[in-house]
Amino acid sequence: MGMYCFGIDVGGTTIKCGLFNHSGEILDKWEIPTRTEDNGSNILPDVAKTILAKIEQKHLDKADIDGIGIGVPGPVNDDGEVPVAVNLHWGYMNIVAEMERMTSLRTKAGNDADVAALGEMWKGGGAGYRNLILVTLGTGVGGGIIVNEKIISGAHGAAGEIGHAHVDDTIKTPCNCGNCGCLEQVASATGIARLAREELASSDEPSMLRDVKKVSAKAVFDAVKVGDPLATRVADRFGRYLGKALAVFACVSDPDAIVIGGGVSKAGPVLLEYIRRYYVTYAFSACKETVFKLATLGNDAGIYGAAKMVLQ
Amino acid sequence: MGMYCFGIDVGGTTIKCGLFNHSGEILDKWEIPTRTEDNGSNILPDVAKTILAKIEQKHLDKADIDGIGIGVPGPVNDDGEVPVAVNLHWGYMNIVAEMERMTSLRTKAGNDADVAALGEMWKGGGAGYRNLILVTLGTGVGGGIIVNEKIISGAHGAAGEIGHAHVDDTIKTPCNCGNCGCLEQVASATGIARLAREELASSDEPSMLRDVKKVSAKAVFDAVKVGDPLATRVADRFGRYLGKALAVFACVSDPDAIVIGGGVSKAGPVLLEYIRRYYVTYAFSACKETVFKLATLGNDAGIYGAAKMVLQ
Repeated sequence: MGMYCFGIDVGGTTIKCGLFNHSGEILDKWEIPTRTEDNGSNILPDVAKTILAKIEQKHLDKADIDGIGIGVPGPVNDDGEVPVAVNLHWGYMNIVAEMERMTSLRTKAGNDADVAALGEMWKGGGAGYRNLILVTLGTGVGGGIIVNEKIISGAHGAAGEIGHAHVDDTIKTPCNCGNCGCLEQVASATGIARLAREELASSDEPSMLRDVKKVSAKAVFDAVKVGDPLATRVADRFGRYLGKALAVFACVSDPDAIVIGGGVSKAGPVLLEYIRRYYVTYAFSACKETVFKLATLGNDAGIYGAAKMVLQ
Repeated sequence: MGMYCFGIDVGGTTIKCGLFNHSGEILDKWEIPTRTEDNGSNILPDVAKTILAKIEQKHLDKADIDGIGIGVPGPVNDDGEVPVAVNLHWGYMNIVAEMERMTSLRTKAGNDADVAALGEMWKGGGAGYRNLILVTLGTGVGGGIIVNEKIISGAHGAAGEIGHAHVDDTIKTPCNCGNCGCLEQVASATGIARLAREELASSDEPSMLRDVKKVSAKAVFDAVKVGDPLATRVADRFGRYLGKALAVFACVSDPDAIVIGGGVSKAGPVLLEYIRRYYVTYAFSACKETVFKLATLGNDAGIYGAAKMVLQ
């Protein structure tokens, strides 16, 4: 076993890179742009180049390097293949084969949300727990399922796609995925803003939210913190949707801990209160004690998780 | 590695036992009663005795035996411990330690529904698939989640407790678990009968179900097969509940196949049609192709799965 590994998080605009030692300390961290032109054909060669350059710059011996972990926005199977990754302009790609060919370093690949979940388990909000659901509340709702410290990727690389769980029969507007009534439509930053706009339109009740320039998830939770009743009702609706859905997910994977990350999680502990309240109401008795935590690694969760994949 | 193993399925009234070879052929199959008196303290000693007697009877060499797999009706953690198993009158029990002490044979233990799921994956309706959700539609709704050919047991041994997923806010009668609106309340044999009684009470519409002695899940699907419109509506409601719930579960574990077993599954392929129709409507795009199968091992699924645990 080597002494170092690389954790790479490929996003639609930048590629985050980290050099780690075995105990999970980050020794160096940098970014390169994601070049999506030409069907994204430069992306993996760029990653290979920056890794090989770092090895030379740091005077590392390749024998001391355990390998490369890499997270990408797309469904990745256990062999490191993606059928398609829209944000990278990729069709089929065998990430593991390509990276190993270019670097001669052992490579593991995973879906970016799954890899971030692994990172939070290893060094973040989920540290100390072996079974986790990570929920990422951003523009959409992403998720990652960790069982016995390992990522579940599923038959089609779609395990943990909890943002597309059906939670409401009354929503007739389609989600980005084509279905209607997905969790993402009511629990993402966009979804929370939408719930707030609905609540504002339903009455003339005064609310701080009527004075903000743009009704956002942040504005909602800022108003909740100073006791705005209308915003509190929005938070309550959000909490009911997400808490109830998480209670259903827990009947499948029965996690020790549920970790909430993404931009919306910046609202802090108050967010967990609204989710946990409904989770406890709907959860199966054996799962009611599941711990709720905020994610702590922010945008670095992906590189931590990618590194951890290599060390497993 | 030995040439034989035992698969044991401990139920509330009988203990099913099987002797298997490595390729999964069953060489002998027998039952003993479950003695639940004295806090179930005889149960594991009885299992040990019947196994040791079988070894002697068949003139087997202990060195040729890989071990014992055992499924019990209760939450079992990865170390083979149960905190409590109500149907066996057990409090805390370390199944693995007890069985290994009494038999000197390596033992693995699991929850009975999980173990049955593994059996169906190995030699039943799910053969050939690595990622599975098994749904058992009996008096209740049980489940087992298989990921990469292994049982998921979860943080509290409650993974796969899909019968207690919340699916309906309007149900105010409590489930056996204490919550209201569980899948079990609408998709078990009991639940289907209840939906039928509701449908019968809601109008005077003629139906075959008005002439049966007892409205049961079997009576409903018998009537569906000859085109009874009221029974068909009941099957449709059942299919919507279960299909929609399975679509949500698939966002968590993304199975290759969903296998439907238990008494209700004797209705045959028509049952799958009603479930699959709604599954496809609500499932995330990547999961819409998930295969639906009927379980094929019946009451033997438990002993097959128990044996497979040992061989893994």
